[in-house]
Amino acid sequence: MLFKNIKLIDGNYEVQSDMYVRTKGAFIDYIGKECPEKLDGETVYDGRNKLMMPALYNVHCHVPMTILRGYGDGLPLQRWLNEKIFPFEAKLTGEDVYWTTKLGAMELLASGCASISDMYFFINDMARSLDEAGMKANICHGISSFDPDVKLHEMKGYNDTMQLLKDAKSGVYGAVNADGSDSRIKADMGLHAEYTSNEGLVRQIAEAAAEEKLIVHTHISETQSEHAECKSRQDGRTVVRYFADCGLFKSQVNAAHCVYIEDEDIEIMKAAGANVVHNPSSNLKLGSGIAPVKDYLGKGLKVALGTDGASSNNNLNMFEEIHLAAMISRGITRDANAISAADILKMASYDGAMAQGRTDCGRIAVGNRADIVLIDTDRPHLQPGFDSLSDIVFSAQGSDVVLTMTDGRVVYKDGEYSFIDKERVYAEVKQRFNRIINEL
Amino acid sequence: MLFKNIKLIDGNYEVQSDMYVRTKGAFIDYIGKECPEKLDGETVYDGRNKLMMPALYNVHCHVPMTILRGYGDGLPLQRWLNEKIFPFEAKLTGEDVYWTTKLGAMELLASGCASISDMYFFINDMARSLDEAGMKANICHGISSFDPDVKLHEMKGYNDTMQLLKDAKSGVYGAVNADGSDSRIKADMGLHAEYTSNEGLVRQIAEAAAEEKLIVHTHISETQSEHAECKSRQDGRTVVRYFADCGLFKSQVNAAHCVYIEDEDIEIMKAAGANVVHNPSSNLKLGSGIAPVKDYLGKGLKVALGTDGASSNNNLNMFEEIHLAAMISRGITRDANAISAADILKMASYDGAMAQGRTDCGRIAVGNRADIVLIDTDRPHLQPGFDSLSDIVFSAQGSDVVLTMTDGRVVYKDGEYSFIDKERVYAEVKQRFNRIINEL
Repeated sequence: MLFKNIKLIDGNYEVQSDMYVRTKGAFIDYIGKECPEKLDGETVYDGRNKLMMPALYNVHCHVPMTILRGYGDGLPLQRWLNEKIFPFEAKLTGEDVYWTTKLGAMELLASGCASISDMYFFINDMARSLDEAGMKANICHGISSFDPDVKLHEMKGYNDTMQLLKDAKSGVYGAVNADGSDSRIKADMGLHAEYTSNEGLVRQIAEAAAEEKLIVHTHISETQSEHAECKSRQDGRTVVRYFADCGLFKSQVNAAHCVYIEDEDIEIMKAAGANVVHNPSSNLKLGSGIAPVKDYLGKGLKVALGTDGASSNNNLNMFEEIHLAAMISRGITRDANAISAADILKMASYDGAMAQGRTDCGRIAVGNRADIVLIDTDRPHLQPGFDSLSDIVFSAQGSDVVLTMTDGRVVYKDGEYSFIDKERVYAEVKQRFNRIINEL
Repeated sequence: MLFKNIKLIDGNYEVQSDMYVRTKGAFIDYIGKECPEKLDGETVYDGRNKLMMPALYNVHCHVPMTILRGYGDGLPLQRWLNEKIFPFEAKLTGEDVYWTTKLGAMELLASGCASISDMYFFINDMARSLDEAGMKANICHGISSFDPDVKLHEMKGYNDTMQLLKDAKSGVYGAVNADGSDSRIKADMGLHAEYTSNEGLVRQIAEAAAEEKLIVHTHISETQSEHAECKSRQDGRTVVRYFADCGLFKSQVNAAHCVYIEDEDIEIMKAAGANVVHNPSSNLKLGSGIAPVKDYLGKGLKVALGTDGASSNNNLNMFEEIHLAAMISRGITRDANAISAADILKMASYDGAMAQGRTDCGRIAVGNRADIVLIDTDRPHLQPGFDSLSDIVFSAQGSDVVLTMTDGRVVYKDGEYSFIDKERVYAEVKQRFNRIINEL
C-alpha cells in the first residue's frame, strides 16, 4: 500500500509533511519525499487531510469485561466486585468470552489500537477471537490461589498459558521465529496480584516465567489499602519488594497501576527493566488515586499506558488514556509542560510495543512492522492544525481514526472492519448479557 | 418534528425507552408512549439505536480563541500569554473574530452544545456569527483596566455590551419579551478578573450590571498565585470577598474556575445564588489545579461546566468536560461515586441553562425549548448499553452526536451543518491564521 502526500509523526516523534509511505507485506519499506517505484498490486491511498501516526499499544486490559460496561457503575469497589462482577463472571463460558472479546476488538481497532496486553481467563478463546479480528496481543491468565499446597503445573490458568505458548511457537498466530517472539498473539505469564495469591504461588510463577522466558503481567499497588495491607501481611515489605524476594523480577514484569509504589520499589523495578503500566481512567474512576508518572519518568522508570477493562474505565479508547495522562500529569504537578505531547504519544506507542517485547513495532520507520493509524484532520476540532502533536494529545478523539493497519493489513477503515461481522457481534453480546442476567 | 421509538434521558435524568417526542416551533410539545396525532409538515425521525438527551450548556468559553488551538502549547502560563497569545490577539480584527467564532461553533454543535457563555472582544461580530450558525449564547466583553480614572461608560467593552443588549431587547436575535430574556443571543456584563482591574472599575461594573439586570461573567481564583496575590493586594481579602465588598454579587455572578476559593467565599456565593463554572480540562492542562467540586456541591453551591477557550483545553467538546469532571471528582476524593452520572449530566445541561438565565431550557420536558441532542448508540463503545447514563458520562465521545437541535431547529446532522459552509470556514481561518503569523 502506498500512502501519498501524507503528514506523519516520524520515528523521532516529529511531524513531517507531504511524505510518501509504502508498506510491503507486514513492514514499512519506504518513507520519503519522493514517490517510490510502483509495486505490483499496490493500492494507493490519498493522504491529503490525513495524519499518519503509529498504532497504539494498550499494555493493561481485560478485554472480555466489555460485556460488563456500565454494570454496577457507581458502587464502591468491594461491593461492585462481590455483588456484581464476580457473580457475573462466574457465569461466563468460553464462547461468551470469545464474543465479548470481539466486541472489545471492534472498539480497540476503531480507536487506533493495534495490540493489547490482556489478563483474563479462557485465554485461548480470546486468542482466537483477537487474531481473527486482525489484532495482536500478549495474553495471560490472571493466576490466583490461596491454597497453601497449590501446584502451578496443575492449574488451568497455567496449562492454558502453556497451550497458548505452544501455539504461538508453532506458528498458529503467524510466527516464523522458533521462540514465537514474532507471533501476533503471544503468551505472557499472569500473576493476578499479591492480595489474591500466596508466597508459594508467586515463587512458582516466578520460576515458570523465567524458565519459559515469559513476560510477567501483574497488578501492583493499585489502591492505598492494597499497598498498606501487603506491608502488614508481608513483614513491612511493599508488593514490589515482596515480589522481588520471590524472584519475580528475574523476568520482565509489566506492572499495572503502581499508584502507590515507594522509592525503593522504583529502584528495584528500574534495575529489573520492569514497566509501570499507567491506567489513568481506571485509577480515577474507581477512586484509586493518581500515579505520579512524571516522577517515575524523572527517575528513569519505564512507563507504558493501558485502559484496564471496560467495566472500570468505561471504554477501551487509548486516545482517552493519552489525553488523561497528559492532563492529570499537568494538573497534579501544576506544571503546564509536565510531560510533553511527544513523550505521551511515545508512551502509548513505542514504549508500549517494547513492553510487549515487540521490538520491530511502535514507530513509523522503515523496517518496522506496519502498525499504522490514520487520523482525519478535516474536522473542526483539529483546525487550524498548527501543532499536530498537540492536536493528537489534547484535541483528537478516538473516532478521528479512519484507518487502522496491523502488520500491513487494513483491519479497520471508515467505520468498517475487514474481519468482523459487526451486527453479529452486537447481537451475540446482547443475547449473552441477557442470558447471564437472567441466570443471576 | 416527531421522534419515534427513541430512548431518552427525561427531565428527572432517568432513562425512558420506546418513547415518542414531538417538537412544535421552538418547543417540545409532546413526550409519551403513544404516537401523537400528525401535525402538518411534520418530519418523522426513526429513533431506533438513538438516545435523546438534553443539549449541553457551556458556561465558560472564549470561542474566538479557536484559531489559537495548539499555538504556544507547553509554554508556562506567563510566557504563553506574553510571548504568544497577547501579541497574536492584538492582530485580530472583527472579521477574524467572526470567522474563528464560526469554526468554534462547528465544533460546539458537532459535540452537542446548544449555548455558550463567552467572554472575548468584538462581541457583536461574535453574536452575528453564532446566531447565523444556529447557536445560542450569553456574550460578554472581558472588561479590564488599571487606569485609576477609568470611566466604564466610555469604554468600548461597555458600549459594545450595551449595543448587544439593545439588539437583544429589540428582537434582533429572536426575543419576544421586552427585557430580551428569551433572546437567542444575550448580553452578560464581563469583568475579566481581579488581577486585571482596579476597585473603581469593579464598582462601576457592579453598578452597571445591577442597573441593567445583567448576569456578571468573571474569572475567580483560577490559580493559587492569583488567589494569594489578591489577598496581599486587597488587605487579606479573597477575590470573592473583595468583589462582594464592591457590590458585584448584587447581580447573578457566573464565576469561572474557583479552584482556590475558601469557606467564607462559598458562603458568600451561595447566599448570592452565584454559580461556580468548573473547567476541568483547562485547570488541568494549564497546571492550575483541581477544583473541589464535590465539596462545593455538598455545601449547596451551584456548579455549571465550561470548556474555557480552545487554546487552553485544547477543544470545545463538552463531553470531555463531563467525562473529566466525573473522573477527577472520583480520583481526588477516592470515592467511586463522588458525583453520580446523572448529577454530572445535569450540571452540563439544566444547571448550565439556569446559569445562563434560560429558565425554559436544559431538560427533555414538555414546554421546554427543544434544545436536543441525539447520540448514535450503534457503536462498539456504547455496547451492550446496559446503563445509558453511565455510557454517556464515561464511554461516549462528542463524535457520537448525530443531531443537534436548538429552539426546535436542526442545526447539525450527520456531520453536516444547516447554516455553516464548512470549507469556507476552514479556509478563512487558515488564511487569517497565516496572515497574523506573518505579521508577527
